[in-house]
Amino acid sequence: MAVYTEVSDDELAAFVAEFDIGELVSAKGIAEGVENSNYLVQTAGTGDAPTSYILTLYEKRVRPDDLPYFLGLMEHLAARGIACPTPLHGRDGAALRTLCARPAAIVTFLQGMWPKRVAPHHCAGLGQALAEMHLAGADFEMSRANDLSVAGWRPLFQDSAARAHEVQTGLAEELGAELDALEAAWPTDLPSGVIHADLFPDNVFFLGQRLSGLIDFYFACNDFFAYDLAVCLNAWCFEGDGSFNVTKARHMLSAYRRVRPFSDAELDALPLLARGSALRFLLTRLYDWLHHPAGALVMPKDPLEYLGKLRFHRDVAGPGAYGLDWAA
Amino acid sequence: MAVYTEVSDDELAAFVAEFDIGELVSAKGIAEGVENSNYLVQTAGTGDAPTSYILTLYEKRVRPDDLPYFLGLMEHLAARGIACPTPLHGRDGAALRTLCARPAAIVTFLQGMWPKRVAPHHCAGLGQALAEMHLAGADFEMSRANDLSVAGWRPLFQDSAARAHEVQTGLAEELGAELDALEAAWPTDLPSGVIHADLFPDNVFFLGQRLSGLIDFYFACNDFFAYDLAVCLNAWCFEGDGSFNVTKARHMLSAYRRVRPFSDAELDALPLLARGSALRFLLTRLYDWLHHPAGALVMPKDPLEYLGKLRFHRDVAGPGAYGLDWAA
Repeated sequence: MAVYTEVSDDELAAFVAEFDIGELVSAKGIAEGVENSNYLVQTAGTGDAPTSYILTLYEKRVRPDDLPYFLGLMEHLAARGIACPTPLHGRDGAALRTLCARPAAIVTFLQGMWPKRVAPHHCAGLGQALAEMHLAGADFEMSRANDLSVAGWRPLFQDSAARAHEVQTGLAEELGAELDALEAAWPTDLPSGVIHADLFPDNVFFLGQRLSGLIDFYFACNDFFAYDLAVCLNAWCFEGDGSFNVTKARHMLSAYRRVRPFSDAELDALPLLARGSALRFLLTRLYDWLHHPAGALVMPKDPLEYLGKLRFHRDVAGPGAYGLDWAA
Repeated sequence: MAVYTEVSDDELAAFVAEFDIGELVSAKGIAEGVENSNYLVQTAGTGDAPTSYILTLYEKRVRPDDLPYFLGLMEHLAARGIACPTPLHGRDGAALRTLCARPAAIVTFLQGMWPKRVAPHHCAGLGQALAEMHLAGADFEMSRANDLSVAGWRPLFQDSAARAHEVQTGLAEELGAELDALEAAWPTDLPSGVIHADLFPDNVFFLGQRLSGLIDFYFACNDFFAYDLAVCLNAWCFEGDGSFNVTKARHMLSAYRRVRPFSDAELDALPLLARGSALRFLLTRLYDWLHHPAGALVMPKDPLEYLGKLRFHRDVAGPGAYGLDWAA
């Protein structure tokens, strides 16, 4: 739940008038995304019904320097047929603008709802769309390092280690050992390119059975393609009770590799990347858990959910645990 | 900021399918209203663009028994040309339904934005629309007592009196004396009918200069028409520094009485009704201030804003203080 910045009707109308999209007829702050302020705006449009857009004001967690990468990437992917929001350009040509002293942009509106209850067919749609996105990003010319990959974890860990026992006894020790192991074994030469890096179910829309869009590219970066899959394995394939659903994983990975086949090295690295991805979300959640102000609007997510996932991947014998059919 | 109840995509699609409005293509929780959960939903519609609706789940502050009155009233007013949301009827004929174990309804979507910075022309539009609403409600057959009028204030006061000094020293004594005076002098025979009773700026939409809709009828009831004006005087005609803007009041009242002239008795009662309306919002805000749970999502509003308004109306010499031109 968000909307941190309240934009007045006058400011909003003036902002929309910088674009060639007709007159503003409605604006509702929407309760999605915890990092930025989002409004569903409607303009009179050109036909007989209003046209919907999403207006985003980028709040403090997004570095302004990164915005040209994020907006450029969405435009690049949309131009190559990926169903994702496309930034609109104002009459002066600029997509990235300023509203209420914050960076702001208007992007196209995507139909669809995110799946509150993930089914295997959702995972298949996700796998296919992820592979298509990886291929479509190949000729995107900008680059952005993944500052939440292995090199970023130790500083994050050190910010929370002294108080980690408040969440669970022995947690700092377990995470420290895990960090040592991951730093020592982390691969350096897997196929890589643009990844989404945060493709949780609430960032993937479906219309009925069909995937209708990917949103929220504000963690996108250049990293291993297989790391993106590792993020999705953790976000989509565990049940509420912590158990791993191998059918969902098989649907996701099989659909992915029908579009973009894995190398053997990628396959072999998958358990390690999945451990790393689990550690990444555990560390950011742990930080938020220990540092969120009392009475904050956003309830922090449970870091321990990701400890269970980390342990699962640490204990698997190999990528076969993810339901992969080796012949495929 | 609201959205208390998270509705899953499957439940939502099933709910929308009970209406004859086409397939659900989008749903966003919107950050408006603090009492209920609201979603902006879009369906495929009948033309080439989606159609927007508002889905409301009624949370605990609304009494289910009152909902037929609220929904019936909106339908009645909309049928008489008042720009307000109209409840849709499902295929079985019912407008009031159930979703996630809560009463729920879908109403039409109104274009427009509420004015964050109120100007005199907004007050004129409001006055006219309010009078038109009062006239249009004349033949509405249901009735609902105003449980937040004079008879409801003493119990509300008693729930907060013992701790009122936490907000301001001497507050309980001042409010107690005010309550005595209002109970003794409250009129009994002014022109009455259906009133909105909560017509704050965030419940009134404008498209440019033109008023495009009234929303949120969940405090509507049968009471004095002039009491509705008294609520609006308090909600629209004070500046942020507590000063009363007589130009705004004159615009509001003049526009109102061009549509529905006041009786002399209504005019004379206006200062008293405005004191009462100020006390009503002061008491509910005081209650919320003293009783809101720590860490609640919704920050309570400052009750003392309404103490200043109450004192203003107590000190005016008569209705001329509201900028009324007696010859009009």
